[in-house]
Amino acid sequence: MYEGAIQDLIDELGRLPGVGPKSAQRIAFHLLAADADDVERLASTLLRVKNEVKFCSICGNVAQSEICRICSDDRRDLTVICVVEEPKDVVAVERTREFRGRYHVLGGAISPIDGIGPDDLRIRELLTRLRDGVVTELIIATDPNLEGEATATYLARLLRPMGLEVSRLASGLPVGGDLEYADEVTLGRAFSGRRRVE
Amino acid sequence: MYEGAIQDLIDELGRLPGVGPKSAQRIAFHLLAADADDVERLASTLLRVKNEVKFCSICGNVAQSEICRICSDDRRDLTVICVVEEPKDVVAVERTREFRGRYHVLGGAISPIDGIGPDDLRIRELLTRLRDGVVTELIIATDPNLEGEATATYLARLLRPMGLEVSRLASGLPVGGDLEYADEVTLGRAFSGRRRVE
Repeated sequence: MYEGAIQDLIDELGRLPGVGPKSAQRIAFHLLAADADDVERLASTLLRVKNEVKFCSICGNVAQSEICRICSDDRRDLTVICVVEEPKDVVAVERTREFRGRYHVLGGAISPIDGIGPDDLRIRELLTRLRDGVVTELIIATDPNLEGEATATYLARLLRPMGLEVSRLASGLPVGGDLEYADEVTLGRAFSGRRRVE
Repeated sequence: MYEGAIQDLIDELGRLPGVGPKSAQRIAFHLLAADADDVERLASTLLRVKNEVKFCSICGNVAQSEICRICSDDRRDLTVICVVEEPKDVVAVERTREFRGRYHVLGGAISPIDGIGPDDLRIRELLTRLRDGVVTELIIATDPNLEGEATATYLARLLRPMGLEVSRLASGLPVGGDLEYADEVTLGRAFSGRRRVE
């Protein structure tokens, strides 16, 4: 609809996840009006991400160097690993300040529909990490959906025979939520996972 | 929360209008996983927008050259000008295929709160365009909000004494909408602007 570069930018932005045609247009005009310095910084940061971001050779999380900040922090508990699907899940768990061990990022979840099997995830790397016997506990923190559950079940079956303590994050009512708005599966999980009031 | 470049990109994206921290994170990881070519194309399009996009010297719309596509199209009606606030409004009107004249982009609307007065808009340029007497009709298509209405009233008072036919886009119920969900101002406008059924 527009001429030349501005339409190209709207098209490019519209391809990003969660950016519809209206938002793409809004962002494009915002950038057109913005300082040239700001736009150059955004463009160079885009290029830097592709060149500079590495993946930690131990846990698979995003990192600036060979080993990520968490894996190179020797104050972290070496005996516990929290298994997550994506780097953003590491950030979510870190924010709780409840976990002081290390992570293992699988890079996704088992999903036969999308053609993703156990071999497409970083499970071999996880087994390598467990070989020296330092790790004694595994907390599986995959997403509470079909793919995440399938991955958790697969991992539990694979790892429990190795004598490890394997647990899964609790499902239940979200804190601050309303019982009447909870879906039946979540409410069912909240029942089956109920805890004695001390 | 993340290390280095990926966090920088999340921060940069989060500054764009309508992009919250969660969307910024989602887009950043999408770009991290995307083809290097795609990311390079996005970065170069960003830079091109700042360098290549010009504003039409006649109407003020975005253009690739000195004069925009619409102003240089001699099949357009030279006697009518549609006055809009922003280039995106030109696209919206073009989409209706109801208007075959030319445009004038003001670059905003009168808004005393934001310190924008008539002198900050392209009103002087509009008066220059009207000087030769070719234009006989003006359709004011500023936004139907406080600032747009103030701008329309200002323009009408300024231009009507010049012997021009000046009109304002109709306000009323949106087509396909529901009467019960219309706000009282819109419904009031729909009443005062009612049309006889032929």
